[in-house]
Amino acid sequence: MALQLVIGDKNYSSWSLRAALAVELSGAACAQVPVSLYRPDSRARLLAYSPTGKVPVLLTEDGPVWDSLAIAEYLAEQFPNAHLWPRERYARALARSICAEMHSGFQALRSHLPMDMARDQALPELPEAVRADVERICAIWSDCRERFGQSGDYLFGQPGIADAFYAPVASRLRSYRVALPAVAASYVETIHQWPAFQRWHQSALQDVRK
Amino acid sequence: MALQLVIGDKNYSSWSLRAALAVELSGAACAQVPVSLYRPDSRARLLAYSPTGKVPVLLTEDGPVWDSLAIAEYLAEQFPNAHLWPRERYARALARSICAEMHSGFQALRSHLPMDMARDQALPELPEAVRADVERICAIWSDCRERFGQSGDYLFGQPGIADAFYAPVASRLRSYRVALPAVAASYVETIHQWPAFQRWHQSALQDVRK
Repeated sequence: MALQLVIGDKNYSSWSLRAALAVELSGAACAQVPVSLYRPDSRARLLAYSPTGKVPVLLTEDGPVWDSLAIAEYLAEQFPNAHLWPRERYARALARSICAEMHSGFQALRSHLPMDMARDQALPELPEAVRADVERICAIWSDCRERFGQSGDYLFGQPGIADAFYAPVASRLRSYRVALPAVAASYVETIHQWPAFQRWHQSALQDVRK
Repeated sequence: MALQLVIGDKNYSSWSLRAALAVELSGAACAQVPVSLYRPDSRARLLAYSPTGKVPVLLTEDGPVWDSLAIAEYLAEQFPNAHLWPRERYARALARSICAEMHSGFQALRSHLPMDMARDQALPELPEAVRADVERICAIWSDCRERFGQSGDYLFGQPGIADAFYAPVASRLRSYRVALPAVAASYVETIHQWPAFQRWHQSALQDVRK
């Protein structure tokens, strides 16, 4: 099964990063198809891959699968031995709950602190709504690590889709130098030590330097 | 397994409707726990059920599962014979793609045409961004019914999670009297003839008349 993942600019496209990490975790052979999101013909180029005109899109032998969450579920089904979701029923339900919460929420964080991996600078002030988002995110991380962290440093012990979904948040919290409680700071470090994340991060920095 | 679904006001809470329809499709024994979203203590009451303070929440024997999409996946896993997702691999991937697209998108439609089942009045003018959302939604419905509609009037033939996710959109398009191409108008009618939808709809109208 030959897969291709259409992604946006690595420094900025947080949803592409989520899908790319899920692909890495699955072990699937999958080529990346980069499409810059900031050119006049970006949308036209993306529409050739998917009816939404957005990234990420996974090109499968049957047709395109779009949206990071649908891509993650597709990979979890196709590569069951990679255990992209936790094996235990309620842990899996919780992992899906926090991924769905990320998928539709945290609008303040997403609009005020857009992913910019090359950045290393705090905002002059953190808006109140962003602070509320950060607080909820820290509560999620802390709860998951307390319940499931015995078997590893990731949210459910071993790396999975939930980590792929929160990795861009970890990147933002570091690049905008947001002060964090110890557990959250430690999880941000775990993400930055994750080899799959580091490969993307390095490649993002190279793109920006070009 | 005793389940309970915490829902908001039936006339307005589109995400509660999605989860409630998925529950009905699953055949699960599940009591509804209504919490009005427009009272001073609404958030405090919801926080007693789930750490997000939002609806819907499915209360399971293991703990709360939140967010409509995670609830849908939980039900699909727990009630496999109900076939909440299409049986064929790519149809299932497409169903998940359009549900995820609904879950994070169509912001213009959602903010300008909030669900209000008791309404029967057009907007003075439909903003351009809403028109673009409606166009994309009609394209999704038309594509699904063309590919999978042979075996029934729903998006993938028989009713499933994808219909649960687009049912509140069908309600909006009717209650705001949005002009639609024939295929989309026919799908809106299918949803309004769906017994599970009708039960919720009747109950929503009764709540408003109180």
